[in-house]
Amino acid sequence: MAVLRSYVSGAWHTPAEEGTVLHDAVTGEEVARVSSAGIDMAAALEHGRRVGGPALRALTFHQRAALLKALGSYLREHREELYALSARTGATPVDSKVDVDGGIGVLFSYASKGKRELPNDTVYLDGDVEPLGKGGTFAGRHIATPLHGVAVQINAFNFPMWGPLEKFAPAFLAGVPSLVKPARQTAYLTARLAELVVGSGILPEGSFQFVAGGVGDLLDHVTAQDLVSFTGSAATARKLRTHPEIVRNSVRFNAEADSLNCSILGPDAVPGTAEFDLFVKQLVTEMTVKAGQKCTAIRRAFVPAELLDDVAAAASARLAKVAVGDPAAEGVRMGALASLEQREEVRRCLKSLMDAGSVVFGDPGRVDVVGADAERGAFLSPVLLKADPERAEPHEVEAFGPVSTLMPYTSTEHAIELAARGEGSLVGSVVTGDAGFAREIVLGLAPWHGRILVLDADDAKESTGHGSPLPQLVHGGPGRAGGGEEMGGIRGVLHHLQRTAVQGSPKVLGAVSGQWVPGAERSISDVHPFRKSLAELKVGDAVVTGSRTVTRADIDHFAEFTGDTFYAHTDEAAAAANPLFGGIVAHGYLVVSFAAGLFVSPEPGPVLANYGLENLRFLTPVKVGDSLTVTLTAKQISPREGADYGEVRWDTDVTNQDGDSVAKYDLLTLVAKEPS
Amino acid sequence: MAVLRSYVSGAWHTPAEEGTVLHDAVTGEEVARVSSAGIDMAAALEHGRRVGGPALRALTFHQRAALLKALGSYLREHREELYALSARTGATPVDSKVDVDGGIGVLFSYASKGKRELPNDTVYLDGDVEPLGKGGTFAGRHIATPLHGVAVQINAFNFPMWGPLEKFAPAFLAGVPSLVKPARQTAYLTARLAELVVGSGILPEGSFQFVAGGVGDLLDHVTAQDLVSFTGSAATARKLRTHPEIVRNSVRFNAEADSLNCSILGPDAVPGTAEFDLFVKQLVTEMTVKAGQKCTAIRRAFVPAELLDDVAAAASARLAKVAVGDPAAEGVRMGALASLEQREEVRRCLKSLMDAGSVVFGDPGRVDVVGADAERGAFLSPVLLKADPERAEPHEVEAFGPVSTLMPYTSTEHAIELAARGEGSLVGSVVTGDAGFAREIVLGLAPWHGRILVLDADDAKESTGHGSPLPQLVHGGPGRAGGGEEMGGIRGVLHHLQRTAVQGSPKVLGAVSGQWVPGAERSISDVHPFRKSLAELKVGDAVVTGSRTVTRADIDHFAEFTGDTFYAHTDEAAAAANPLFGGIVAHGYLVVSFAAGLFVSPEPGPVLANYGLENLRFLTPVKVGDSLTVTLTAKQISPREGADYGEVRWDTDVTNQDGDSVAKYDLLTLVAKEPS
Repeated sequence: MAVLRSYVSGAWHTPAEEGTVLHDAVTGEEVARVSSAGIDMAAALEHGRRVGGPALRALTFHQRAALLKALGSYLREHREELYALSARTGATPVDSKVDVDGGIGVLFSYASKGKRELPNDTVYLDGDVEPLGKGGTFAGRHIATPLHGVAVQINAFNFPMWGPLEKFAPAFLAGVPSLVKPARQTAYLTARLAELVVGSGILPEGSFQFVAGGVGDLLDHVTAQDLVSFTGSAATARKLRTHPEIVRNSVRFNAEADSLNCSILGPDAVPGTAEFDLFVKQLVTEMTVKAGQKCTAIRRAFVPAELLDDVAAAASARLAKVAVGDPAAEGVRMGALASLEQREEVRRCLKSLMDAGSVVFGDPGRVDVVGADAERGAFLSPVLLKADPERAEPHEVEAFGPVSTLMPYTSTEHAIELAARGEGSLVGSVVTGDAGFAREIVLGLAPWHGRILVLDADDAKESTGHGSPLPQLVHGGPGRAGGGEEMGGIRGVLHHLQRTAVQGSPKVLGAVSGQWVPGAERSISDVHPFRKSLAELKVGDAVVTGSRTVTRADIDHFAEFTGDTFYAHTDEAAAAANPLFGGIVAHGYLVVSFAAGLFVSPEPGPVLANYGLENLRFLTPVKVGDSLTVTLTAKQISPREGADYGEVRWDTDVTNQDGDSVAKYDLLTLVAKEPS
Repeated sequence: MAVLRSYVSGAWHTPAEEGTVLHDAVTGEEVARVSSAGIDMAAALEHGRRVGGPALRALTFHQRAALLKALGSYLREHREELYALSARTGATPVDSKVDVDGGIGVLFSYASKGKRELPNDTVYLDGDVEPLGKGGTFAGRHIATPLHGVAVQINAFNFPMWGPLEKFAPAFLAGVPSLVKPARQTAYLTARLAELVVGSGILPEGSFQFVAGGVGDLLDHVTAQDLVSFTGSAATARKLRTHPEIVRNSVRFNAEADSLNCSILGPDAVPGTAEFDLFVKQLVTEMTVKAGQKCTAIRRAFVPAELLDDVAAAASARLAKVAVGDPAAEGVRMGALASLEQREEVRRCLKSLMDAGSVVFGDPGRVDVVGADAERGAFLSPVLLKADPERAEPHEVEAFGPVSTLMPYTSTEHAIELAARGEGSLVGSVVTGDAGFAREIVLGLAPWHGRILVLDADDAKESTGHGSPLPQLVHGGPGRAGGGEEMGGIRGVLHHLQRTAVQGSPKVLGAVSGQWVPGAERSISDVHPFRKSLAELKVGDAVVTGSRTVTRADIDHFAEFTGDTFYAHTDEAAAAANPLFGGIVAHGYLVVSFAAGLFVSPEPGPVLANYGLENLRFLTPVKVGDSLTVTLTAKQISPREGADYGEVRWDTDVTNQDGDSVAKYDLLTLVAKEPS
């Protein structure tokens, strides 16, 4: 039997004791032994801080993103052995895909988000420059930089692949090393993941550590720069949240706890509608995928009172078709719970729920099993209960297995009120073809939810379903759900960074942020900055163009040529009556076109293209006789990883003869890295 | 002697007991009695939730912003009586301005930010639409909505005006009612503020409650939808953070604790430089303003070892000129500490600091006092100590009074390391004329700091100083500073909102967000949407224009007319060599100009102006012979409060004859509310 090793302080560690035996959820066979005995937790944290952190912080966001992508590709090559181990946790092939492919998918998603939405730099700029003085010599800007500690990630047993990876990816992209601790029950799968990750050699040493077994005295050594994130029970979350060192050091603590997620059927979705069928199908799916062991599964189904019996009948009919048994056996749709202990716990909860209602489908005490021994394996029938929504139990007792309650509601307000009685959920869903009802429910539920899915005939085909957190969207919820937030694209990265307001002169803010800040000096030379490759160009390099006077003939001609004959450009009397112009004005498009004519450098050179504009504002009307000049300043230079060019953002200020800005925008160009 | 009343559950409450006597910090006279005895805290919270919350949530962000502005103006009219009470806390006229005017300034700042940076709506959209399926039928979007609870705000004694207002303003703007509890010592000033706020009649009932006296059993009644924010000692922060109901309900808890903020002198800033003088002046200011009773004051001054004696001498000379005494007396620059107890506490800390160093200036035991009795009033001399930076005390012991240590550093790395030994600070500063040194220090210090000021000759005149948090910038810090974050403009508002990921079809996302989402249906009618006022226009109203073919002559002419003769538009061979174009392409500006010509509705009408463009991207090169069509769709409609027009944002998609998008952008227009 395998003994799970930990990877800490740069080496593989074999436990100093026999450890706990882990069992195959299907056969009851012994799979592995696990223990963290003998690990020097303080040293592991210090290794992360001293070795992993600096190595990660030496990389830009884009470089870290590229490593995540490489790791995802590497793991994808090793899926088969991961599936095999996943099956021993009681997972069906579909369940395994959710866990294994879902986890790898998070790596790819963060790789892609990192490249597209973060700078190729080590500092993240949060928001715009804030002017702090009228004279323009003092301003503020928020930067975000990686914490210098370790992200301690304490995972739940139900997703031994996805769980660790969804916490690891944003931490890594942020530049913060991870220490991954899976739950014991299914740690053998995460241990194999760890072997692959370490064995790949892709990640910088110290950026990924792995502890199989108990948390030991790990938390006694956390500091203000470390983070602790936890997925699991509310009771454990409370214990960790109040750990003396977490409290003493104000350690960032994130919890995802199981919650009593609801799904609401719209009154429009009567039997015969697509939405009625979608609701029933989704309810059964959520009850049975992973044998209902998902913190996001539907625990409370709310349906219009008059549809309660219809839904009960339809769901029961569908549940009856779900074959339970050995995930490897033909036709099996639902596997085992993760352990016999887990089954006992679910049965205990079911007893409590049955005080508030009655069983509609299933038998908590027995189940027909395909290809396995119903008692040696942790098998349980799906159980659907009709419950009294005014009782406390359905809103408080979470049976972490293939169990849901079905409850009637009488009005939209009632449905919202019942949903809120869950006191905070990771996710809710509403199934309706009525967008107005969807809006009411979503806005009513939002304060209590981290995620809300609206399912209807339009999106059903592409919907990823109630139970699936996505890396692009936040995962977490208030109150009972733990009050945490993970993923959500770059939001999940920011949770690992310290936001700092920096105040100073434009010059200093530019030096700190790597971006030219209005008010800072410009560097104007004989060489047009468009003639400089990225190797030569510096932030602050600028050109002040010659000027061009706008004539009435220009405006008339532009109107005629482009067809833009808006009265403000063509009709003196009407333009005079416009409250903003008070007379003929030049087209905004004329202004930016003339500006381009002023700042262009026509011959082939390092500037390959002007691929866009941002934040264009027309600030002062341009009248006949006004003379335009452009000041163009290199604001931000972003070389692209693995390409021979990069992006340059230019601060563009078009001024008139009085020095007033008539238009301001950021010009976006692609520029070659080297002179050609 | 006044008995301070509380304002809870819609009525003024007089305490059910005598209460604690509060003393004038200068004269020792009794000022008021305070007690929260008899207040039904559970009812007060429920009043906020049931009355204040719904009233606030019925208003848009802009409407709430307007009320904040009105409240600011009202309070400004009553400054004199607030100053008078402020003086009794030991504050000089300058100190009072910081507290009173600073607090009112936060109201104005949030009023302005709310109007400019938040929508005139009740839902905040956080980030862009996230496509979740290739077919475009399923997407996600994050919304943020107000929590349905009460923001419990527990304030510190040192800023009885600014403290409550800086917590109240973002909560109010967010749509969350406040329950304001000041510290006892200076509660008489906050009580007067509360009387003014309530008396003004400006705020909706239930949105502002006030508890003078102890917190009682208030926290036993908080739920998952409430928030608790605290400013004060680390010990109290720990106690509150682990309160059973806060933990059980995952209540959002924000702490600002006193920290050992540092100021670093750059090696360039030798005696004779402007920066040397600025450093010394700022150090003395921070030691003496509010008698050093600021959680942001400088506690540790780090200077290059070789400049230690120069700084000690210059600071001492300056400190010697600070007259201590009755704030009302002529020439007094520093008043009293807030209470005799506070002075005892500072003296106790000083003893500990003196173990690690020696006094450079001041006498902890005695002080010359102007116009007051040195023992009846809580007066203390400013005390500057030279300390050994390798000892623990200077980095751990915070004397919350006119006290700072002065310590030598030997290299940039050393300075960063010493700063980090504070284990998390609200603010740090660096005084240097060397932007490179500033960058190194700022990036080195950032993970341990919420705010960093760079002071130099360029920004000194406009700088608001080390100790002043600003509403535009975040206030808070990691670790010892409490791990919290407040203000920071809209960031502080978001801390009061629940972020929720909504998933659904484009139609549903549009209904929920009030914004048209690409992929949703458009409404195309015979009436051009530019002919519709805000009263008539609906999100999704669209026009598909006729088309226009781009000729070589158009491109040649545009180049000649505008002067934009970039080779890609003019030189066939050179354009063919460009890796992106492979031949002559039309100018991007030509494309947007022709687009305007296609979608324009020339006659005077409700559209007053096109005031800008956002997120313009040129996606496909336009070649000779390509034919352009524009689809323009009303994406967002934002009526402006108190004006007869509003903003309309149009999704603009310019496509070619193959249906490929050649340019996409948001067009920004001003549109009249009513048909003219």
